[in-house]
Amino acid sequence: MSKKQFVEKITSMEDDFAQWYTDVVTKARLVDYSSVRGSMIIQPYGFKIWENIRDELDRQIKETGHENVYMPLFIPESLLQQEKDHIEGFAPEVAWVTHGGESELQERLCVRPTSEVLFAEHYKNIIHSYRDLPKLYNQWANVVRWEKTTRPFLRTLEFLWQEGHTCHETEQEAIEETERMLHIYASLCEDLLAIPVIKGRKTEKEKFAGARFTYTVESLMHDGKALQTATSHFFGNGFAKAFGIEFLNREGKLEHVQQTSWGFTTRIIGAMIMVHGDDRGLVLPPNIAPTQVRIVPIASHKEGVLDHAYELKNRLARIARADIDASDKQPGWKFNECEMQGIPLRVEVGPKDIEKGQVMLARRDTGEKQAVTLDALEQTITATLEDIQRTMYEKAKERLHEKTSHAYTIEDIEQILAEENRLIKAMWCGDEACENDIKERTGATSRCIPFEQETISDTCVCCGKPASDMVFWAKAY
Amino acid sequence: MSKKQFVEKITSMEDDFAQWYTDVVTKARLVDYSSVRGSMIIQPYGFKIWENIRDELDRQIKETGHENVYMPLFIPESLLQQEKDHIEGFAPEVAWVTHGGESELQERLCVRPTSEVLFAEHYKNIIHSYRDLPKLYNQWANVVRWEKTTRPFLRTLEFLWQEGHTCHETEQEAIEETERMLHIYASLCEDLLAIPVIKGRKTEKEKFAGARFTYTVESLMHDGKALQTATSHFFGNGFAKAFGIEFLNREGKLEHVQQTSWGFTTRIIGAMIMVHGDDRGLVLPPNIAPTQVRIVPIASHKEGVLDHAYELKNRLARIARADIDASDKQPGWKFNECEMQGIPLRVEVGPKDIEKGQVMLARRDTGEKQAVTLDALEQTITATLEDIQRTMYEKAKERLHEKTSHAYTIEDIEQILAEENRLIKAMWCGDEACENDIKERTGATSRCIPFEQETISDTCVCCGKPASDMVFWAKAY
Repeated sequence: MSKKQFVEKITSMEDDFAQWYTDVVTKARLVDYSSVRGSMIIQPYGFKIWENIRDELDRQIKETGHENVYMPLFIPESLLQQEKDHIEGFAPEVAWVTHGGESELQERLCVRPTSEVLFAEHYKNIIHSYRDLPKLYNQWANVVRWEKTTRPFLRTLEFLWQEGHTCHETEQEAIEETERMLHIYASLCEDLLAIPVIKGRKTEKEKFAGARFTYTVESLMHDGKALQTATSHFFGNGFAKAFGIEFLNREGKLEHVQQTSWGFTTRIIGAMIMVHGDDRGLVLPPNIAPTQVRIVPIASHKEGVLDHAYELKNRLARIARADIDASDKQPGWKFNECEMQGIPLRVEVGPKDIEKGQVMLARRDTGEKQAVTLDALEQTITATLEDIQRTMYEKAKERLHEKTSHAYTIEDIEQILAEENRLIKAMWCGDEACENDIKERTGATSRCIPFEQETISDTCVCCGKPASDMVFWAKAY
Repeated sequence: MSKKQFVEKITSMEDDFAQWYTDVVTKARLVDYSSVRGSMIIQPYGFKIWENIRDELDRQIKETGHENVYMPLFIPESLLQQEKDHIEGFAPEVAWVTHGGESELQERLCVRPTSEVLFAEHYKNIIHSYRDLPKLYNQWANVVRWEKTTRPFLRTLEFLWQEGHTCHETEQEAIEETERMLHIYASLCEDLLAIPVIKGRKTEKEKFAGARFTYTVESLMHDGKALQTATSHFFGNGFAKAFGIEFLNREGKLEHVQQTSWGFTTRIIGAMIMVHGDDRGLVLPPNIAPTQVRIVPIASHKEGVLDHAYELKNRLARIARADIDASDKQPGWKFNECEMQGIPLRVEVGPKDIEKGQVMLARRDTGEKQAVTLDALEQTITATLEDIQRTMYEKAKERLHEKTSHAYTIEDIEQILAEENRLIKAMWCGDEACENDIKERTGATSRCIPFEQETISDTCVCCGKPASDMVFWAKAY
């Protein structure tokens, strides 16, 4: 029987990237759909990936002095309205609870789209003096945004995230916090998920509703579209003024606190799929893979094979997250499932391998196969997992560079994007009118003003006036 | 300055148990109130307790072969209505979302009060053959029940929990699962939280909406009222029939799956407070305490004291969850805070102790204080923490026995409960009419039909007809 027969057909990236994505998330059994529009069921395999990301991020959040809390799911309409910019930004996309049991509520409750106002109300209660500062709180929660078009992980009615909300004595300290968390997000993307990122600041137009400024971590997907992977906001004292969060400072005077918030969501799983995946399915970086090594016994009905495979599994479980597929399915089917689910390493072992004192080791990322003797097994697997992690990052980084173009006129942008989706570096005057023009004419939005600036020309790509910043532009998820 | 001056006044249990409870949850900084009626803000200290419970339960859930998933927050009204008993049970207490953004929804969505119907819909999609069984899923989530009267942890509009939902080939297997999870809950209560429990079955009247039967773990609070700490339900194939969850069995015939569900909530924190707390505040069992040992330096302005205290803290951090209160507050204030927050052990160290090469060790549960030499420190602390855990459990177990009475007539129940709240053992004929009578006349509800049966008489406590079961009755939270 040829291997082909076992291949679960998925659409190729080339043919239809959106369909490829849907095929991967469902056939790798990350999510299932339900009768709840725009919401997803995160299945065990998808949830294990999220747990691995969450646990590592939670560790880093705690290590940097933050404490976890839990805030209510509902926000009374009047509370949401207390900060003007914030309500304007979120009102069009919230779900409203109007009835509790059999009765109509006197005041509507929105299902939290984010929890700034709840934290603000609480902070007003518990902060009185500079001795109470900083307050470094975080929560892991579900939030709801009433999106019209939805796609698993990327844009869903409900998603899971962590949202940090902090209060500080000084602007300087709050800005440092905003930066600290952005860097944690960036290194989480790069080190754990092998996703290279661009760090920068959002434009005024693209910043968070109510923030003074928003820092962002942007990444590039396989199809040349950008994705905002995480954001960190500096609020100044805007919310503090709206909610009356004041403290007695070191000089004995009342002052408003300086605030930040920052969030990281299940969206990152979508990014990981679209950065690393290929036409055979998911490709998971070893650092995050629920299963790093899968043992597949060949001709497992033959005496000794299954026992030997289980021994191997127990042996490898000491150095990696290892499991075994001991089902009675055909090896070809098992190989394809392994590939569809993006398991970094597959160890094949059959009667001939046992005779020779070896196993066959197959890499998911490059497709390479090699025979490994049993005495070199641990060493080879540890080294190969490290190499896969590094190689995946480098490959993605290379693609990021390859898919980045320079543009000097708006026609350049149009022409580049007419050919294919790419990330575009272009100078900008800082005027929102130009940003709007570019979006209207090319479909590209400003992704960020990167911290690492270059001067690629002196004039704005749109209006030709003197440029203030180099900006990354792209079509985006 | 006398120690009294630093005592944060809390109401005594004797004077007003409900007010004592509210004082403890707020003054120990477990929760804060917000403008969201009936919801609570779980503050860092309260959330750390929940994280400790959650992590241990999650470990045991996974160890027994279950996998975590995540289901949508919303349930379309039509889906909720698919199982008749279930919707009847929950309809009066759900929150309804009627608007998304600016538009009215075509179909109302309820905010999940529990997720049986979502799991059922998903299981119908993914279960086809006996090879797909068992399915052992669990989720950690927030749920909403539109309660009229609420109290932190005990009864809140929104609470956190885990809900397990499983599908099995046979009734026998599903019943074993229902039992397995009940036993896990019971040993979690006893071993981790030092809360003695009674395991049993709920009556038909008190069982979960839609279940064939409900197992429960009941515990007794300091004020003689009972609290249902966890439940585990066997559904038979009721939901499977309502949702069409069928599989090809080993004989190649279509059959409905057998289901269970089971849940454990933030309510347990309320139970822990009311079982162990005293008039000085919270008393936490060491196994769950976020801080097991707190170092309090005395006269910390004197040279060497603070350094010595930090050394001790680092030394103890190797064997316990240890922290230090190095603030400039008075020792008396620190002692009281330690007691209010229920920290099991306090280590006091001042200039004289340093001179003598010792520390003062104070137990929260018994109030005992002893001098311990530095070379016996680790050994003493480890042993004392174990002793506190054991002593707390035994003390609670003793109280459970002391507060349990036998009743032979309904007048007995009335008389007992007129004096004080107690747990009552009495025989029952199995008739719901008697159960209703008892509730109406005495305020006591049937807590459970315990697995460990006794025959304390032959006739029903209410109607005098032949009795079938011994039942625990009590007023309950």
